[in-house]
Amino acid sequence: MSRFDTYFLMKTEDVAEYVKEKLNFFPEDATLECKEIGDGNLNYVFRLKDVETGKSIIVKQAGEATRISAEMKLSTDRGRIEAKILSIQGKYAPGLVPEVYLYDGVMCAMLMQDMIGHTMMRTGLINHEIYPLFPEHISTFLVNSLLLTTDVVMGHKEKKENVKSFINPDLCEISEDLVFSEPFIDYNKRNNVFPANKDFVQKELYNDKKLHLEAAKCKFDFMNNAQSLIHGDLHTGSIFINQEHTYVFDPEFAFYAPMGYDIGNVIANMFFAWCNGDATIEDAKEKEEFCGWILDSIEEIVDKFIAKFKVSFKEHVTDTMAKTEGFMEWYLGTVLRDTAAVAGFESIRRTVGMANVKDITSIADEKKRARAEKIVITLAKDYIMNRETSFQSGADYRSAIEAAIAKF
Amino acid sequence: MSRFDTYFLMKTEDVAEYVKEKLNFFPEDATLECKEIGDGNLNYVFRLKDVETGKSIIVKQAGEATRISAEMKLSTDRGRIEAKILSIQGKYAPGLVPEVYLYDGVMCAMLMQDMIGHTMMRTGLINHEIYPLFPEHISTFLVNSLLLTTDVVMGHKEKKENVKSFINPDLCEISEDLVFSEPFIDYNKRNNVFPANKDFVQKELYNDKKLHLEAAKCKFDFMNNAQSLIHGDLHTGSIFINQEHTYVFDPEFAFYAPMGYDIGNVIANMFFAWCNGDATIEDAKEKEEFCGWILDSIEEIVDKFIAKFKVSFKEHVTDTMAKTEGFMEWYLGTVLRDTAAVAGFESIRRTVGMANVKDITSIADEKKRARAEKIVITLAKDYIMNRETSFQSGADYRSAIEAAIAKF
Repeated sequence: MSRFDTYFLMKTEDVAEYVKEKLNFFPEDATLECKEIGDGNLNYVFRLKDVETGKSIIVKQAGEATRISAEMKLSTDRGRIEAKILSIQGKYAPGLVPEVYLYDGVMCAMLMQDMIGHTMMRTGLINHEIYPLFPEHISTFLVNSLLLTTDVVMGHKEKKENVKSFINPDLCEISEDLVFSEPFIDYNKRNNVFPANKDFVQKELYNDKKLHLEAAKCKFDFMNNAQSLIHGDLHTGSIFINQEHTYVFDPEFAFYAPMGYDIGNVIANMFFAWCNGDATIEDAKEKEEFCGWILDSIEEIVDKFIAKFKVSFKEHVTDTMAKTEGFMEWYLGTVLRDTAAVAGFESIRRTVGMANVKDITSIADEKKRARAEKIVITLAKDYIMNRETSFQSGADYRSAIEAAIAKF
Repeated sequence: MSRFDTYFLMKTEDVAEYVKEKLNFFPEDATLECKEIGDGNLNYVFRLKDVETGKSIIVKQAGEATRISAEMKLSTDRGRIEAKILSIQGKYAPGLVPEVYLYDGVMCAMLMQDMIGHTMMRTGLINHEIYPLFPEHISTFLVNSLLLTTDVVMGHKEKKENVKSFINPDLCEISEDLVFSEPFIDYNKRNNVFPANKDFVQKELYNDKKLHLEAAKCKFDFMNNAQSLIHGDLHTGSIFINQEHTYVFDPEFAFYAPMGYDIGNVIANMFFAWCNGDATIEDAKEKEEFCGWILDSIEEIVDKFIAKFKVSFKEHVTDTMAKTEGFMEWYLGTVLRDTAAVAGFESIRRTVGMANVKDITSIADEKKRARAEKIVITLAKDYIMNRETSFQSGADYRSAIEAAIAKF
């Protein structure tokens, strides 16, 4: 019998005893120190550290409600999903996700590698850090974790068992509402619209019925198309990074959906960093360097994804019909279409929706922030409305971004 | 303890005792008679009848291998799925599916309503029976069972639980292989090609790479798009019918997939009946009447489906974004596109694939059978290659059919 045999929400003082009971990780006589370091919306994240050696471990426990709103009750089963996903992603994209030591279904807690020496990427980008290896790392992560879990590659029966195992109604509902619905029709009155852009948002988002129709189409594709095991929340706050390594974590929104969802999220969030850099860096050369790197990175991510996708497809394709001449190009085309669409939805929902991003909200100058948001929304609409054919290469993204910037 | 506490495959002599143990259906002293009446590929179907009153019940037991090939092992779990599906379809389309009295998970057997006084529709059609109410009944069944199980209508969480519950890897594999792959690339050497059409099939199916590409696209949509709870095997052998009633049964292939799959199956199988009538009815007036009714029916099924779909959509739609102006028309357009494609795949796979249909194989005259198959294949390719825009109404189907007939 142990007090950890029944679920309760741990406090920092519980964690040392908990880890000692579960894992032989620290020496018996170690002096351990615990801090709550979470800043997500759904979980409690503790770092437990041996004061002498500096060795540390992360304990991530799922709460029963979101931290931004107690009304949004969630299944704690998402921790189980997360631990399984990390092990699958670790298999396909080794070294690009943290190691999971143990998942405890009773306490809904995961004991995992502490990515010490790495920064949350959003924080790094807001400090205008440059990570030259990021496009190389993230494109490998995307191709490997996404293409290898489709039924183009994976045995169809195994893939269907995966689909079943990772059906995730609670977290999908959040995305369906916050990404594909409320930014266009604010029926829950939860949007956070920057006051200076109220009229712009009214005209460009709330009143644009053609945009609503495209959003509706994409929403049902997102809900129904079980293409690939996506991360589901791949923004720069779900990445720990330094000059050498990139770790993708927090895959608790994972389920089978169009793979463009993950790629689009990365692209949209990289551009938020551009907005921050453009609005807040004072030194012209420094600005040029950081913002230029962001645009180069977006282009590079898309092009490296395409190149690695083709190599991996040819190497790993197993389905007889998927080997048909022209199929790979068609399939990749649909992935790029979905990527553009989701880059648009993520851009919009992080600007006017319930969950904003610090890259934008931390721009203190009201005019500069208003301009940044207008650029983001204009670009996003281009992504969504012209997704079918206009975004097939990194250069296409660069042109669209430059055109949107030039308008404001 | 009972000998039915462990699974075994029943013989006719076991069924009376089995039913008495499970259900209070017949009087204690009734004289019961049992016959095996199944002619499907996967199950054993027994009719147990009270000799004096004529009252009867059906016992359908799942075997562990298909009846056409002992190598194709199947999960007996499909019976559980079938019983649950019949209860859902019975709720949405009352009076159009048989009543289930009991499902026994141990014996993998379902005790259900005997649709006595009804004929298996394929048998009736081969006897050139006309069923004037069929388009009315089947269009209601299709709209109600399909549209009401989508997430346009159903709560998204409930729908996801359904998707999970009805994932059906064994039976999906059969469709993926037999419908979307082998008729184009005969890698398992299981196709049954009519010798007189060997060259035609080689040229029109095996050598047509453009067709293979479209088949590959549709295959992945069929495998991934969890749109609606489809019957999954809605041919005329899965329908019991008479002049007043229509019962759809055998939904053991059911899972979440594009709804066009069911509609396309109905259309393709109705046309097989046309082929039989055209090739085997000698009396010109009788032929005109039967074949004319088939063409009218196909047109009527499509048009009634469209009309009822629109009414039902407006009445039942719940999703906020799905209410966007233009969404219903777009959504229905995709359903009609999928319908045409599947009408094509079903036509082809039943002509050259592993599981042929009696409507065609019973045409004794070799030249007439060869002509019928050429018409079917030519029409099927039109359905598949021009699915995007050419099949949006009953009249579109009539024109395409007439054009294919005129070629041979």
